Amino acid sequence: MQDFCFDWKTKIIFGTKAQDKILEEAKPFGKKVLLHYGSERITKTALYKKLLDDLKGYAEVSILPGVVPNPRLELVEKGVKICKDKDIDLVLGIGGGSVIDSAKAIALGAHYAGKVWDFFEGGGQVDEVLPIGAIITLAGSGSEASKYTVITNEEESLKNGFGDDRIRPRFAIMNPEWTHTVPAYHTACGVADILSHILERYFGQIDHSDINDPFIEVTIKTVMENAFQLQKNPYDYIARSEILWASTIAQNDFMGLGRVSDFEMHKIEHELSALYDIAHGAGLAIIMPAWMQYVYKHDVQRFQRLFSSIWKDYETGDHLERSILQGIERFKAFFKKIHLPVSLKEVHISDEKFDMIARRCTKNGPVGKLKPLGSEDIKNILLLAS
Amino acid sequence: MQDFCFDWKTKIIFGTKAQDKILEEAKPFGKKVLLHYGSERITKTALYKKLLDDLKGYAEVSILPGVVPNPRLELVEKGVKICKDKDIDLVLGIGGGSVIDSAKAIALGAHYAGKVWDFFEGGGQVDEVLPIGAIITLAGSGSEASKYTVITNEEESLKNGFGDDRIRPRFAIMNPEWTHTVPAYHTACGVADILSHILERYFGQIDHSDINDPFIEVTIKTVMENAFQLQKNPYDYIARSEILWASTIAQNDFMGLGRVSDFEMHKIEHELSALYDIAHGAGLAIIMPAWMQYVYKHDVQRFQRLFSSIWKDYETGDHLERSILQGIERFKAFFKKIHLPVSLKEVHISDEKFDMIARRCTKNGPVGKLKPLGSEDIKNILLLAS
Repeated sequence: MQDFCFDWKTKIIFGTKAQDKILEEAKPFGKKVLLHYGSERITKTALYKKLLDDLKGYAEVSILPGVVPNPRLELVEKGVKICKDKDIDLVLGIGGGSVIDSAKAIALGAHYAGKVWDFFEGGGQVDEVLPIGAIITLAGSGSEASKYTVITNEEESLKNGFGDDRIRPRFAIMNPEWTHTVPAYHTACGVADILSHILERYFGQIDHSDINDPFIEVTIKTVMENAFQLQKNPYDYIARSEILWASTIAQNDFMGLGRVSDFEMHKIEHELSALYDIAHGAGLAIIMPAWMQYVYKHDVQRFQRLFSSIWKDYETGDHLERSILQGIERFKAFFKKIHLPVSLKEVHISDEKFDMIARRCTKNGPVGKLKPLGSEDIKNILLLAS
Repeated sequence: MQDFCFDWKTKIIFGTKAQDKILEEAKPFGKKVLLHYGSERITKTALYKKLLDDLKGYAEVSILPGVVPNPRLELVEKGVKICKDKDIDLVLGIGGGSVIDSAKAIALGAHYAGKVWDFFEGGGQVDEVLPIGAIITLAGSGSEASKYTVITNEEESLKNGFGDDRIRPRFAIMNPEWTHTVPAYHTACGVADILSHILERYFGQIDHSDINDPFIEVTIKTVMENAFQLQKNPYDYIARSEILWASTIAQNDFMGLGRVSDFEMHKIEHELSALYDIAHGAGLAIIMPAWMQYVYKHDVQRFQRLFSSIWKDYETGDHLERSILQGIERFKAFFKKIHLPVSLKEVHISDEKFDMIARRCTKNGPVGKLKPLGSEDIKNILLLAS
């Protein structure tokens, strides 16, 4: 285990009565609230009405809707302006990861004199970040308790991330029932996102196998099993709650403590969704198996261990490599079964921009810990994903 | 998963350079620090000297040594008086769980007009609790990130616990190297404590098997394996770090989220150590197998699952019950191998006070979720443990 510092920070209110706690959690942060969400659909829900009633009882509420998947810088800048003009105390996001990521970026910019995009370009320094609250209606990103935000700068076709403990939401209100009506495709995208978050950590730089290895393995197994369960019954509260909780702990660093990860699959995917605006989870379902296929030779033992832990009937037999390739196919088959794309072709992406993607991924040098990937490697992975 | 609210709160600084962060973490809480520890041995260490140098650079330091295992109310009261007299800003404990439990009780009493024991008798209300910092030199209690404290009232031979999120330490500084020189017996006691913390949760009230089940199972396996490793080499940094981290997450509620536990094994053990002042971990090593033997019939499937997950070669065969009894024996054998007592006889406890213990354990009604235990049941468990 390498040295680590871990600041969980986010208070979690989880379960069927989570909505009853919104007022109690939000109120201490102050009376000026920026309420942030995506489409207007949310305003038709009982949850939203309850939220608004709670807030109106004590707060001046500013409202900023309009977050889209792969959340945009332009809207973030609008939010920052509201925070400055109205002297906002709390940015409260209701929705999925895109909304919370957008809320985080707004909170970052609220007390910053420069442009908020500075943070996403490796610059930007600020003493104070507004507190963020998260009300979660979609499992996947884990943004409700993570220190990360990813924002798309449409003008420059860039999708960049930023991390800081101060942007971890102070509280996350999570009721699995709110995810019951998430369409199957978005549920599946969330599942791919969860799996990628922990796999990126599993294949990070590790001194030795530690307690996080089995934590990750059992989480993968749990998420896969419950994803199948939701195909049978999307209203299965137990399956929804397992997946929702897994999504939180998959990305708040808990399972990556003591190891260093590069998030190379995410880096590749971010380029894809910046250029083609595909769903993040769909992009990951395409990239993950291709990445595995490209790098597995650099640690066959670890792949063997992973697959053996997921599937009881996984046999390595005499041909270790062949077994691993079969394991990768099986992983891919899982994504197919939950109706995610597993090739770039399926989402109509040709090889036209592979050079550009590869160059942009590696602009600060090779990415990845298991095998450091240069631009040629990235191109090869994209070809395998084609 | 049952509804839950979880507030991790404690910032963790973990690893070989943890000591470098003491100043940074402590300073923001204020200039008046109460430094709390156990025996004077700690003052001879380089860690203590570094700590004192750091504190003296900015703080007025009051010092309260003398915490003993099963920490005493009398010393807590002394600490409370110092906090009130000197207007202390931070209670900083250095040592193991007893020191941190004592620091928590002091922090609770600092702004309370009544007697601190009120909290441990179910009364006591206070608006403000002093912040607590923990520098951990012993793995086991997990007190560095838990919301619990257990204090012994010698005068009345009582050992009572209290829990509140506000007494979770704000930061925990943990370097596994500091545990390298912990004697084998105390290391083993810590291991028993860790196992009990997660087993009490594993056998709590659970709606259905959830992600915490495999988390607990792999943690038990990891702790047992690394306990053997430390018998071979107490200076094994990897094994020390696995056990130290497991001890934190075993007791900060992470693995018990969504389930309700009663800590009945702890309740029995607390009576034993209140009356006989035996080491908490030793008491647990005696009680755990006896409790298992007494209750296993109430959920054979769960015991089967537990043992199968710990030991790859665990066979249930045709005789499920016989297999489980063998599993319990194996569990007991583990404690024997790490040189812990597994019977009351070994620690010279006769049946003289069994009635009294059973009565005191159940003074508020039956304890335990798997099987609610009345006073007769407690006596039977003590007989099995004899």
